Amino acid sequence: MPQEEKAADVARREEGYTLYDLVSMADSAELDRLDDETLLRTSPHILSVFLSRLDVDTQRQILRRFSPEQVSEIVSEMDSEQSAELVSEMREHRAVSVLNEMEPDDAADIVRELEDDDRDRLLKGMQKSQPEAAEDVLELLEYPEDTAGAIMNPHVATLRPEMTIDEAIGAVRKMRDEYENIYYLYVVDSDDVLQGVVSMRALLLAPKGSRVGHIMRTGLIGLLAPTMDKEIVAHIMADTNFHTLPVVDSDGELLGIITHDDVIDIMRDENTEDIQKMAGAGADEGIFDPIFSSIRQRSPWLLVNLCTAFVASAVVGFFDSDIAVLPVLAVFMPIIAGIGGNTGAQTLAVTVRSIALGEVEMFDMSRVCLRETWKGFLNGLLIGLLGACLAMAVTRRWDFSAIVWVAMLINMSLGGFMGSFIPFTLKKFGLDPASGSSIFATGCTDTGGFFIFLGLGALFLL
Amino acid sequence: MPQEEKAADVARREEGYTLYDLVSMADSAELDRLDDETLLRTSPHILSVFLSRLDVDTQRQILRRFSPEQVSEIVSEMDSEQSAELVSEMREHRAVSVLNEMEPDDAADIVRELEDDDRDRLLKGMQKSQPEAAEDVLELLEYPEDTAGAIMNPHVATLRPEMTIDEAIGAVRKMRDEYENIYYLYVVDSDDVLQGVVSMRALLLAPKGSRVGHIMRTGLIGLLAPTMDKEIVAHIMADTNFHTLPVVDSDGELLGIITHDDVIDIMRDENTEDIQKMAGAGADEGIFDPIFSSIRQRSPWLLVNLCTAFVASAVVGFFDSDIAVLPVLAVFMPIIAGIGGNTGAQTLAVTVRSIALGEVEMFDMSRVCLRETWKGFLNGLLIGLLGACLAMAVTRRWDFSAIVWVAMLINMSLGGFMGSFIPFTLKKFGLDPASGSSIFATGCTDTGGFFIFLGLGALFLL
Repeated sequence: MPQEEKAADVARREEGYTLYDLVSMADSAELDRLDDETLLRTSPHILSVFLSRLDVDTQRQILRRFSPEQVSEIVSEMDSEQSAELVSEMREHRAVSVLNEMEPDDAADIVRELEDDDRDRLLKGMQKSQPEAAEDVLELLEYPEDTAGAIMNPHVATLRPEMTIDEAIGAVRKMRDEYENIYYLYVVDSDDVLQGVVSMRALLLAPKGSRVGHIMRTGLIGLLAPTMDKEIVAHIMADTNFHTLPVVDSDGELLGIITHDDVIDIMRDENTEDIQKMAGAGADEGIFDPIFSSIRQRSPWLLVNLCTAFVASAVVGFFDSDIAVLPVLAVFMPIIAGIGGNTGAQTLAVTVRSIALGEVEMFDMSRVCLRETWKGFLNGLLIGLLGACLAMAVTRRWDFSAIVWVAMLINMSLGGFMGSFIPFTLKKFGLDPASGSSIFATGCTDTGGFFIFLGLGALFLL
Repeated sequence: MPQEEKAADVARREEGYTLYDLVSMADSAELDRLDDETLLRTSPHILSVFLSRLDVDTQRQILRRFSPEQVSEIVSEMDSEQSAELVSEMREHRAVSVLNEMEPDDAADIVRELEDDDRDRLLKGMQKSQPEAAEDVLELLEYPEDTAGAIMNPHVATLRPEMTIDEAIGAVRKMRDEYENIYYLYVVDSDDVLQGVVSMRALLLAPKGSRVGHIMRTGLIGLLAPTMDKEIVAHIMADTNFHTLPVVDSDGELLGIITHDDVIDIMRDENTEDIQKMAGAGADEGIFDPIFSSIRQRSPWLLVNLCTAFVASAVVGFFDSDIAVLPVLAVFMPIIAGIGGNTGAQTLAVTVRSIALGEVEMFDMSRVCLRETWKGFLNGLLIGLLGACLAMAVTRRWDFSAIVWVAMLINMSLGGFMGSFIPFTLKKFGLDPASGSSIFATGCTDTGGFFIFLGLGALFLL
């Protein structure tokens, strides 16, 4: 039902193509029958999702029907790596127009991903045709990727404190189209140092004859530094509930603003990164990325997984003569290892998210690890008992069943510990707490589970 | 460094307590030494994170130092289940004041979580002290949880099309404090049917003598229905890049608005849900939730895990006499199963995110499953070969190594298939594509891996 609603809503507002229409036409090689008018009414988002599935030549062929402004809108919704490939394949004049039309931060994202010679070529083109746009992009490129500086919009509507209200309104009137969506006007002095902020509403209600300096709000909270990680920007934005936050340098000079839609994009990206990094897939891997790019990103983690699995199997190998005598040990091995792995995965998920949301900090490490180990142990009391009962039903040996219980208890505690210890440790070493965490955790619970269970078995059953 | 920056930023704007300060004081039972002034300067977000770690009595004791308005700010940042418990423990008069001060959607979230008698009691209190606030909350309670209707703010600043600009400015002037953060004014007719929208900027620049109807923007896109799932609301908001979207009923009557900060909250929640649900932890489980609540949420999935693990172990049991003859089979078993499980986890992560982001739809199911199976197979060619080489080094048997390769190939293909098939199937049955998906996928690759490997071993090696 929600899907239908979404479709209905899109239809109501656009009456353009749906994703299904477009995909069906692509499947039956009917893309040349696309109707221009319907295409123009299709939402840029749907177009970007659709284009992401096609090869560059087909992308270009379809985009030929749009103006540079429309193309810029569609392309800025695509993954920046993909859009860089697309832009580099366009004729230079066209590519430059598209980049000129974009928000500077979107353009900078794409330029950053270009090959060196394409980057020089297109930046030169921009400098010739629209020097300010080129300058904005060059400025943004100076900040490291994924920082506030790199994602801010340097184009800010500013006022001076000494302006009268009429002058301010005149200034708002003169602000060009790109400022259409402004809600706040930032007030700066002659050195561009941020003094305060004026909302449109304050300007509207200001008594005649007063000056901007009188009505501006000072003592701003939530100032951003250009070097801040974008994830932290998102946290501050979510915590302050502001719509727009200013980025200032150490002298207080206003460098740009970050708006709510940037933050929504950051949150989408970061969350996808977390969930995919945990499993060892590419952080920004999309499902329709070229197959070999996806394989390249996943195989290193599969190699890590192969190594941890070999360690686990070496533990089993150490006990192979015991298994030959009592093969039911091999039968129960996967249960002990699996339940420990799942306990680890549960803990990992909660820990990685709590770190990402800022609910726990490094100083909580020992507290969290202890609690999670304890949770694993308590769950093990119940689940391990059930496991032991089933073992009793299968083997009719109380000593075997007792060992199953103890092994499950210990391995589930280990799962709880590792699931919390690993993300904190990754973070401690400056790595992403999610990075391959699930592979490391499973490696530990497999190895640990086999060692505990087979060790106890060899000690007490043989 | 980012952490320091965040801390520095918080300090710059607040000079209140940091989370570390508060936690340390709680650890050393020094909470009674909290300084009132510093406490008042502490950000509501930090306070909410800190309070979430305490028991209800200590929460109440600390909140006693704040005014109802401040408490409402802090409490609305907490998890609604926790804040419901807290509110129900406050003295009635205090609880009612706190609820009255909240945004209606936040208050409704809390009221929804209350026990029946607490709910009646507090709603009655609200009706007596602030009937409009109570009415807003009651209205929101009529919509199912997690829909646009339940999270919207029914308090909207509206204008009439026939108003002159001066009248409109007068209306803005009269709008009370709760409208402080408005950027758009919605225009409705006498039946409250939405006609258009006016930005503050348009109002500011409007020529004298014109009327609201002349300057309003019509043909609004991104209208929301009150029954829409909140996840879809977030998508539409992210796609349209609007700051505020109106919710209208089927007759076009304006019911409320949803703003960017609601959407940021939705995205936080939904992403936490996805990552935690995949592993079978509680969807909204926080790391400092009471231990037994966490155990209650995790143990059902551990039971499911126990069942799938038993199926896998039954497969091993079927081959136990073969393992007794050739125990190296048991040694390599975990490698085949583990690598298939990890391939499944990678695929699962990418698939669940692509579904959540709307990059793939149900009609893509067969396409995606095929591609992911293919990716698993291709990765298996490389990783399986390495596995086989290592098996050769250990066993010096080419037939054993060949079986390791083939089993890894097949099981990694199975992992790719299951990792994509499971979330689509869950979605098809109206379930969350993330729900326990990782447990089901691992169950399949464990069972499948053991069956393939031991089956091949029994066939060709014995």
